[in-house]
Amino acid sequence: MSRLAVHNGLFAIIAGELLEVEERLHAPVSDGMGLLSAVAQYALASGGKRIRPALLLLSAQACGAEARERSVALASAAEVMHAASLLHDDIVDRSPTRRGRPSAMARWGPDVSVLVGDFLYSRAVQALVNDTDRRVLRSFADATVAMAEAEVLQLQMLRDLTISEADYLRIVTGKTAALMSAACRAGALVADAPDPLVDALTAFGLNLGIGFQLVDDALDYSAREERLGKPVGNDFREGKITYPVMHLVRTGSHEDRLALEELARREELGEEDLALLRDLVDRSGGVEATMRLVDLYLGRARAELHGVPDSPACRTLHHLVDFVRERDW
Amino acid sequence: MSRLAVHNGLFAIIAGELLEVEERLHAPVSDGMGLLSAVAQYALASGGKRIRPALLLLSAQACGAEARERSVALASAAEVMHAASLLHDDIVDRSPTRRGRPSAMARWGPDVSVLVGDFLYSRAVQALVNDTDRRVLRSFADATVAMAEAEVLQLQMLRDLTISEADYLRIVTGKTAALMSAACRAGALVADAPDPLVDALTAFGLNLGIGFQLVDDALDYSAREERLGKPVGNDFREGKITYPVMHLVRTGSHEDRLALEELARREELGEEDLALLRDLVDRSGGVEATMRLVDLYLGRARAELHGVPDSPACRTLHHLVDFVRERDW
Repeated sequence: MSRLAVHNGLFAIIAGELLEVEERLHAPVSDGMGLLSAVAQYALASGGKRIRPALLLLSAQACGAEARERSVALASAAEVMHAASLLHDDIVDRSPTRRGRPSAMARWGPDVSVLVGDFLYSRAVQALVNDTDRRVLRSFADATVAMAEAEVLQLQMLRDLTISEADYLRIVTGKTAALMSAACRAGALVADAPDPLVDALTAFGLNLGIGFQLVDDALDYSAREERLGKPVGNDFREGKITYPVMHLVRTGSHEDRLALEELARREELGEEDLALLRDLVDRSGGVEATMRLVDLYLGRARAELHGVPDSPACRTLHHLVDFVRERDW
Repeated sequence: MSRLAVHNGLFAIIAGELLEVEERLHAPVSDGMGLLSAVAQYALASGGKRIRPALLLLSAQACGAEARERSVALASAAEVMHAASLLHDDIVDRSPTRRGRPSAMARWGPDVSVLVGDFLYSRAVQALVNDTDRRVLRSFADATVAMAEAEVLQLQMLRDLTISEADYLRIVTGKTAALMSAACRAGALVADAPDPLVDALTAFGLNLGIGFQLVDDALDYSAREERLGKPVGNDFREGKITYPVMHLVRTGSHEDRLALEELARREELGEEDLALLRDLVDRSGGVEATMRLVDLYLGRARAELHGVPDSPACRTLHHLVDFVRERDW
């Protein structure tokens, strides 16, 4: 589903606000700084679905916020923060591509990506510090601490087939759910929602984000390359042991586990190796097991929405949960 | 001069506060995150002179601040921000050493350095967001934007012997002076100083910082390796064209400039090349010219202090200007 289709369909009720977010993201970032502007534009105009801005805008509307400009400003800052983290992730993962085109790292090198990531993150903080409610910036600062912690933990656990479910979930929560949760929380704060509602939307974002990342990890073993814009088995290739493989480690036959350990020891994985890996994961039902875990977290996300008054925005958040479950992008 | 000597001598009147800053910097950073804690500790306990915390504490005292704990918290955050930027700078510069020992990048690789830098920066923001005066965080956010901009500009201008003085000063200002200025400004804000005093200390920090970086650039062509903890001519080796070389380009003989251009084209510079470079810079008086520029900016810094009421803290800021002028570290 293209971004436009998402905006016209699922996100129709915030299409106007998302357009304003888009305009802000495309605005020149820095006077007379050619390279910086070019790379920042490239990172910001990367064809993402703008899920974080949408979460913020929908949460704000679901709580009855009327501060459209403030919501749009914060929604843009959330996406800028996300783009900054992707620039740094691509360095760490040495990703040649991002969303089907060369990563900024591949195009301009890691030096530029480090600095433009820093620049974008600082710009996001600059925008957030202008908000009247300090709790908004605090939410985002807490999220970025969790993101960095999770990324370091992920590095530490690379190629470790014995990774515990607790560590895995800590990584998933930090690297994806923390920022989505902060976006939902910020939306509720903009609306000056009562504490229980703020907490419900914070928890909604957290559980949705965990589900989102788990679907991502499942897709790495089930989607076709054209859909994903990156090769199947890419996580394993990068040394990331995710739930489908963890399930194989726990439930696979002795032979299958030996075959997996053999693959994990390889320096390079060829097409045949990846086909074997996919077979092994298939045989253990690793993708299905991951989707069962997805349903657990998305169920929790839906449960949190029961604490949110019914409204078009709240219904869209419900649809978003379904959309995350069914997504093949 | 060792850090202890600086603290006991120049910074005697804030020795107690600096000790508290030190304790905060050495406190564990993250529960159960072995690698993250180790690298963060390494980066924070790197034997720096804690100039930025000192500037914040002295500015606060010079403006009559009584909020000791608040000053110490902000001073620590300023140093954490500085440490984060050094982690990323070392990646960009590919520096094998930092202050005479292996850089974090050399020890743990660029991936870990990117992420721990992000972590430390986010932690600093977390600390700053707790401050009651939003202008404090805004000052630091503005500084980090300027830092990232300057670092990208520096990358863009690598090996460019025709760099303009304006671009050079923009780099110097962004990469060093901006954060020192923010530290001084934050100190004045903590004291709830009147606007003219806040502005005077902001400008003081900016001019002191420019002078500080210019001295750094001069030392790269005049100091001995043991003092600096990095090789002489290191900037040129990294492709950074600084004032001593810019002066040579503008005033050197035709032959000397040809010799410089020849050096600039080399992929690798050996000991003999660096000796020649130093001779060329010596002959043009590049270091002396740089120090004349230093005196201009430090003179401006001193002039700004005339707007600050006399006090032990203000006198220490005066001494700090002399110290920056005479430093050989």
